[in-house]
Amino acid sequence: MRRTNLFIKTLKNAPADEQAKNAQLLIRAGYVYKVMAGVYAYTPLGIRVVEKIKQIVREEMNAINGCELIMSALQRPDTWTGTGRWDDDVVDVWFKTHLKDGHEVGLAWSHEEAIIEMLKQHVNSYKDLPQSVYQFQTKFRNELRSKSGVMRGREFVMKDMYSVHATQEDMDKYYDTVIEAYKRVFDRLGIGNKTFVTFASGGAFTKFSHEFQTICEAGEDTLYTDEENTVAVNEEVLDDATQEIGIDKSTLKPVVSAEVGNIFKFGTEKSESMGFTYTDKDGMQKPIFLASYGIGVTRVMGVIAEMMSDEKGLVWHSNVAPYHVYLVAIGDISEHADMLYKELESNGIEVLYDDRDERPGTKFADAELMGIPIRLVLSQRTLDENNAEITYRQTGETTTVNLEEVATQIKDKIQL
Amino acid sequence: MRRTNLFIKTLKNAPADEQAKNAQLLIRAGYVYKVMAGVYAYTPLGIRVVEKIKQIVREEMNAINGCELIMSALQRPDTWTGTGRWDDDVVDVWFKTHLKDGHEVGLAWSHEEAIIEMLKQHVNSYKDLPQSVYQFQTKFRNELRSKSGVMRGREFVMKDMYSVHATQEDMDKYYDTVIEAYKRVFDRLGIGNKTFVTFASGGAFTKFSHEFQTICEAGEDTLYTDEENTVAVNEEVLDDATQEIGIDKSTLKPVVSAEVGNIFKFGTEKSESMGFTYTDKDGMQKPIFLASYGIGVTRVMGVIAEMMSDEKGLVWHSNVAPYHVYLVAIGDISEHADMLYKELESNGIEVLYDDRDERPGTKFADAELMGIPIRLVLSQRTLDENNAEITYRQTGETTTVNLEEVATQIKDKIQL
Repeated sequence: MRRTNLFIKTLKNAPADEQAKNAQLLIRAGYVYKVMAGVYAYTPLGIRVVEKIKQIVREEMNAINGCELIMSALQRPDTWTGTGRWDDDVVDVWFKTHLKDGHEVGLAWSHEEAIIEMLKQHVNSYKDLPQSVYQFQTKFRNELRSKSGVMRGREFVMKDMYSVHATQEDMDKYYDTVIEAYKRVFDRLGIGNKTFVTFASGGAFTKFSHEFQTICEAGEDTLYTDEENTVAVNEEVLDDATQEIGIDKSTLKPVVSAEVGNIFKFGTEKSESMGFTYTDKDGMQKPIFLASYGIGVTRVMGVIAEMMSDEKGLVWHSNVAPYHVYLVAIGDISEHADMLYKELESNGIEVLYDDRDERPGTKFADAELMGIPIRLVLSQRTLDENNAEITYRQTGETTTVNLEEVATQIKDKIQL
Repeated sequence: MRRTNLFIKTLKNAPADEQAKNAQLLIRAGYVYKVMAGVYAYTPLGIRVVEKIKQIVREEMNAINGCELIMSALQRPDTWTGTGRWDDDVVDVWFKTHLKDGHEVGLAWSHEEAIIEMLKQHVNSYKDLPQSVYQFQTKFRNELRSKSGVMRGREFVMKDMYSVHATQEDMDKYYDTVIEAYKRVFDRLGIGNKTFVTFASGGAFTKFSHEFQTICEAGEDTLYTDEENTVAVNEEVLDDATQEIGIDKSTLKPVVSAEVGNIFKFGTEKSESMGFTYTDKDGMQKPIFLASYGIGVTRVMGVIAEMMSDEKGLVWHSNVAPYHVYLVAIGDISEHADMLYKELESNGIEVLYDDRDERPGTKFADAELMGIPIRLVLSQRTLDENNAEITYRQTGETTTVNLEEVATQIKDKIQL
C-alpha cells in the first residue's frame, strides 16, 4: 500500500478526551477513530489488525471443527424472556429500540439464547451431535461508563463459540480441546507467554469456569499466580480454587491482568431452561450439554496495544501488524524504491510504502509510532553498495542487507 | 467440510410466514435462519456465500485504490443534525435508542455523514486528495414492512464506498472507473449479462445518478431497455433521460428489475453542508467533491437466489457457491471417498462431503436444493472402472471421469 493512498495522518498528541493508553496510541498512530466513548471506527490500518486477529482465531476454531456462521444484532424479546434475561434488572447492558409497529427489539450484547434457539431447529437426534459453531459478531453493551478504549466498548467485536454434546464426557473432552486451541491463538497473537488459563467463578453446573487472563497494567482483574506461573487463579475464587487444587494461597502473588477470553460449561442448565433436548439411541428425550467460549477480538487488540508499546509508539507482533514492512526511500530514487516495493509484495510481504513528499525523519517517526515490525530504508548511499537498511522495531537493531537478499531475509524473519 | 460437521438440515417445505421466494429457498436449503421479518442469520453455508460476494467486491474495490475500513453502527445525533438527516421526518428508517446517561444514539442506516466527519479530520490539503474508502458494514433500517426476504432487510450488509476529490474532472474520471469496476463485480457474480447501468434520478448536483439494475421478477423497479440492451433507464426518469440521450422513449420496453448497486455524485453539495474543505496550491479553501457508491451484498445474494434457481432448488455460480463440489459415496466405500475428498481439498477445491448415514436419493436432493455446482458420485460400480460420476447442477449433464482426472477436470470447469 502506498502511503499517499492511505488517508490517515498520525497525530503528535492524543485527544484530550481519551484516557485509555490503548486508545490514545491507536488514535495517534491512525488505527482507530473515536466516534463516542466506547465506540470506535477502525481505519484501513486498524481493520487489518482486527482481521489478522480474526483470521488466527478462525483458523484455530476451524481446526477443532468449529463452523463459522453469523447471527443478527437485532433480537426478539421472546428469545430472551424464557431465561429471564430480557429483563433490564437482570441484564443491565441492553440497548433496546422499537420496530415501526411498536414491537420492542434489542441489540445483542450476547448471542447465547439466540444461537440455542437456532440450534433447536436443527439438532434433534444423537446423530446430530456434537456440533460446534462460532461467529465474529458485533456486540452492543450499554455500559454506564466506557473509559478503557477499545478494551471495553459499547460496540465491539467478539468471537463467541458454542458447542453442544450428548454427554458430559463429550463436552468435557471438547472443552479441553478448546483450551489448547485458545493457547495456540494467544501464542500466535504474540501474548502467549503473558496469558494464563485462570480459575474463575463457575455457575450452576460447574464450580469453576476458566478465563484467559493476560498480564497487563490496564487490566481490570487481579490474578494470583505462583513463581513458576503454572497456576493462575482469579481473585474472586481465590479461596475456593486454592482449596480445590490443594495449594497454599499464600504462595500465590497478585498481578493485574486483563481478561481476553473466557470459557464456560453450562452443562444441561441452559438447555433445560430453553427446552433444548435430543432423542438418544433408545428414543428417550435428553437435555443437551452446552459450553460456550469467547474471545474479545477488539479487546485483544487493545490489550496488545497496551502491552507492546514504548515511548515511540506501538510495537506489533508481525502476525498481527497491519503491514510487515515500512518502506522509506531517501532522495530521488523512487524508481528503485518502486521496484523493491513490487518485488516484496510479489513475495507476499505486506509493505506500507511511504511515498509522501515528507522528510525522512517524519517518515521514521510514523514507522515507529505505527509499530510496523520492519523498517526498510533505501538511499543513494545504500544503493551504491547494492544494499538496503533494515531496522527491527522491537529491538531497534539495524542491519545492512544486500538488495538481492532483502525479500528472503524478511520472509525468514516474519516466518512467511 | 463433512456434512456431519454441519449442523444444518434442509427442509421440505418453506416456512409458512415467509413470502419471498429468495428467503423460502435460502431457508429450505439451509443458508439462512429467520430471526424476524427482515432479519436473518447466516448459517455456515450462508456466510460462505456472503463472504464470497464480499471478496469479489473487495478485490475490485482494492484494484481501483479503494481502502477498506469499518465504521460503527452506533451514531451520535450531531453527526447527522447538520444535514437535517437526524430528523425522523426526513429519514424515516432510523432505529434510535439511549445511552445510560440519557443521550440519544442511532443505528446507522447509512454512513455518509459519519464517513465525511471522519475524513474531515484527515483530509485538509490538495496533497491529501484524492482518496477512496469503503466498508462492508451492517446497516439497520426500520422498514415499515419487510416482505422481500434478504433482498430488503431491517438488518443487512452493504458495501458503501466514498471518494473525495479536488476537482470535478477528477471525480468524474473516478466515477467512470467505478462503473467499470462494478461491471466486473457483477460479471464475476454471474449476473453481468442481466445487470444494466441505468439512468436514475440525480440530486442537487447532477441530473442523473446511476443504478445497477438486475432483471429479476422479484424486483421492485421497472427498467426501460432497448432491443440490444445498450441503454437502460429507470422508469422514474424515463422522460428526462430519453430526452437527454436523444432517443425515442417508445423504442424502450419495460422489464421488472432489482437494484443491486447505485452510484451518486454529491459534487460539492454535501461537503459544503458539512464544512468539508481543502486548501489548494494557492492556499485557498475549496469545497471537496464527493461521490458515493453502494452495493447491497446480502441483497445481491437474494437476487441471485431469485434468478438462479429451478424447481429443485438453488443454482449457484461457482464463484459464489458455498462449495464447488457435493461429494456422495454410495455403498461401503468410505475409504475411497475419504481419499478423494482429501485429494480435492488439497487441490483447493471446496468440497461438501455428505458422510451422513442417509440414502443416496436424500443426498442427491440436498445437493440439488443447496445448488452446489458439481455433484460427484463414487460407487463400487464407478470404482471398478476407476471412475467417478460428475453431474453439473446448471445443465444437469452427467459425465464419467477417470479418478486420476477428477481434480483437474473440476479445477478447469470452475476456473480455479
